[in-house]
Amino acid sequence: MMDDDQRRRKELISALVADVPDFPREGVVFKDITPLLGSPAGFQAAITELVTSAPRDIDMVVGMEARGFIFAAPVALALGAGFVPVRKPGKLPGETISESFELEYGFETLTMHRNALRQGARVLVVDDVLATGGTIGATAALLRQMGAELVHVSVLMELTFLGGRERLAEAGIDSLTSVLTV
Amino acid sequence: MMDDDQRRRKELISALVADVPDFPREGVVFKDITPLLGSPAGFQAAITELVTSAPRDIDMVVGMEARGFIFAAPVALALGAGFVPVRKPGKLPGETISESFELEYGFETLTMHRNALRQGARVLVVDDVLATGGTIGATAALLRQMGAELVHVSVLMELTFLGGRERLAEAGIDSLTSVLTV
Repeated sequence: MMDDDQRRRKELISALVADVPDFPREGVVFKDITPLLGSPAGFQAAITELVTSAPRDIDMVVGMEARGFIFAAPVALALGAGFVPVRKPGKLPGETISESFELEYGFETLTMHRNALRQGARVLVVDDVLATGGTIGATAALLRQMGAELVHVSVLMELTFLGGRERLAEAGIDSLTSVLTV
Repeated sequence: MMDDDQRRRKELISALVADVPDFPREGVVFKDITPLLGSPAGFQAAITELVTSAPRDIDMVVGMEARGFIFAAPVALALGAGFVPVRKPGKLPGETISESFELEYGFETLTMHRNALRQGARVLVVDDVLATGGTIGATAALLRQMGAELVHVSVLMELTFLGGRERLAEAGIDSLTSVLTV
């Protein structure tokens, strides 16, 4: 059930995400979150909504470089959880594990410190956008490598026409909420 | 004056930053903040210290890709300010301004949306590490291009032996606090 406060927050967030046609290339409509971030009320509303959708007793919040950090770090603080960054190769100084996934043009690799999560840790993954699910899928595979439990995925925006939710469900990830669906 | 709570926070933060020798290359001691981020109490202490050092009436907090986002975004929320990301080229969809600075090996370019800050906006810059001052200096130059006022710079760690503070002072940036000095 959505109460009036929640409806107002979602309307505010929605109004502050801008469509930018043909970025980063022709035919793609980019969702620009910088107007949302630049609005104190809008940014706070986004974090409140992400926190509201999170299950209780989360040990660690995992966020992905770079835009994911902007939402995942505040959610970790609000939940009293730790924060674990997932990064591009070559950025983390300790021993890492990695997962690659296919993009439209080539491959992307994500890495995480091998000791970042204890076995059985209850993890919430937070990201800005769920598109095809490649990033979140690879992150889930990193968590599996470590024996951590992916309890829930919370995203600001879900681009439903790209079928990310279905692809993640096929990979066994079916606990997912999005603040906005597009 | 440092009270007991503040002393305890600084000790906790200090204990959770790990030295990693020879990363990203031989002879460099890398400061690894991932143990700090992974500790709920440690991460919260870091944000509390950064917020405590911030002047009042900040309109916007500016943070730099990617690690800077982890600290700058929560500080923006805590201050009730907006958040503006400074990014590598090709990441921001709108019209941008840019500044380049020299690294040990080549150049780095930072960009910001041209309309991200209004003329006269009171800005706090937050970053994880002050090393040579290249990133913060380029960010300050972006703010000048926009006519925004750089009120203060807050960093988690200052590597004093690299002389970043002196270099920034020569560029007219003399309001700077660091939680830890190394």
